[in-house]
Amino acid sequence: MKPTRPLAIVTLVAAALLGGAAQAQGTPSKAEQALKYRKSVYQVIAWNFGPMAAMAQGKTPYDAKEFAMRAERVAAVAPMLLEAYPAESRGVPQSRLEPEMWDNRADFDAKLRDLIDRSAALATAAKTGDFAKSKAAFFETGNACKGCHDKYRSE
Amino acid sequence: MKPTRPLAIVTLVAAALLGGAAQAQGTPSKAEQALKYRKSVYQVIAWNFGPMAAMAQGKTPYDAKEFAMRAERVAAVAPMLLEAYPAESRGVPQSRLEPEMWDNRADFDAKLRDLIDRSAALATAAKTGDFAKSKAAFFETGNACKGCHDKYRSE
Repeated sequence: MKPTRPLAIVTLVAAALLGGAAQAQGTPSKAEQALKYRKSVYQVIAWNFGPMAAMAQGKTPYDAKEFAMRAERVAAVAPMLLEAYPAESRGVPQSRLEPEMWDNRADFDAKLRDLIDRSAALATAAKTGDFAKSKAAFFETGNACKGCHDKYRSE
Repeated sequence: MKPTRPLAIVTLVAAALLGGAAQAQGTPSKAEQALKYRKSVYQVIAWNFGPMAAMAQGKTPYDAKEFAMRAERVAAVAPMLLEAYPAESRGVPQSRLEPEMWDNRADFDAKLRDLIDRSAALATAAKTGDFAKSKAAFFETGNACKGCHDKYRSE
């Protein structure tokens, strides 16, 4: 058996990952890729927010290690949002983004940076293992989400 | 105007993020959430793999800073896959996972750990700014993807 050539592998892997549904429907546009990417980043944030929210609300016991791990993960992916709204994605269908964002880009980016900063602060707070501090930082992060949703996310 | 209460914010944010399409279709099951989560993690990996693959293949010039940033991001999200295949997600529709995985869980998890280890090595290599080393580590990571796809991903 011939060894698989590295370039072939990379092409194959990239096509397989990026292709997916696109194999049937044609290659997704840059706009569609960006939409899918940002929805994915939000999904990763949401998945990790869930258990933190449950702990912060007293619905599940505080697990300092898990809380810190999830805070770390949110902090790791939040900065990815900065590249998830390229100009090409303006007007892409299936998006809940309010079109006003494109006329308020600086404000929108400032809100993203606020989320990034607060989630970094959350990760730092969570590492201390102090529940009160962690909870407060979590609510601050939630406020950053809400501040942007209220203005730039359609119902 | 009354200040928004923290608990209300968290509930609202978590529901909004997790809800999405589910608001119309009912709350997604744990299995559906896990499927959406792992697809999201793979999407984040793919988005960051793209520019690295282009550089590794000489299609775009090597940008050490960007390469290292993208390697770091892949390394940050790869470990999330370990919790993305909970037992409840067995048989979930719309998945390309080969059902044989559930009888080979230890092998599958070993393959995930291989991806995690190689993407960590990729991030380390990329930080050196050495193109040859970065490229080699990237191909190793691509091989880890392929090794699992060949066995556990349906066409």
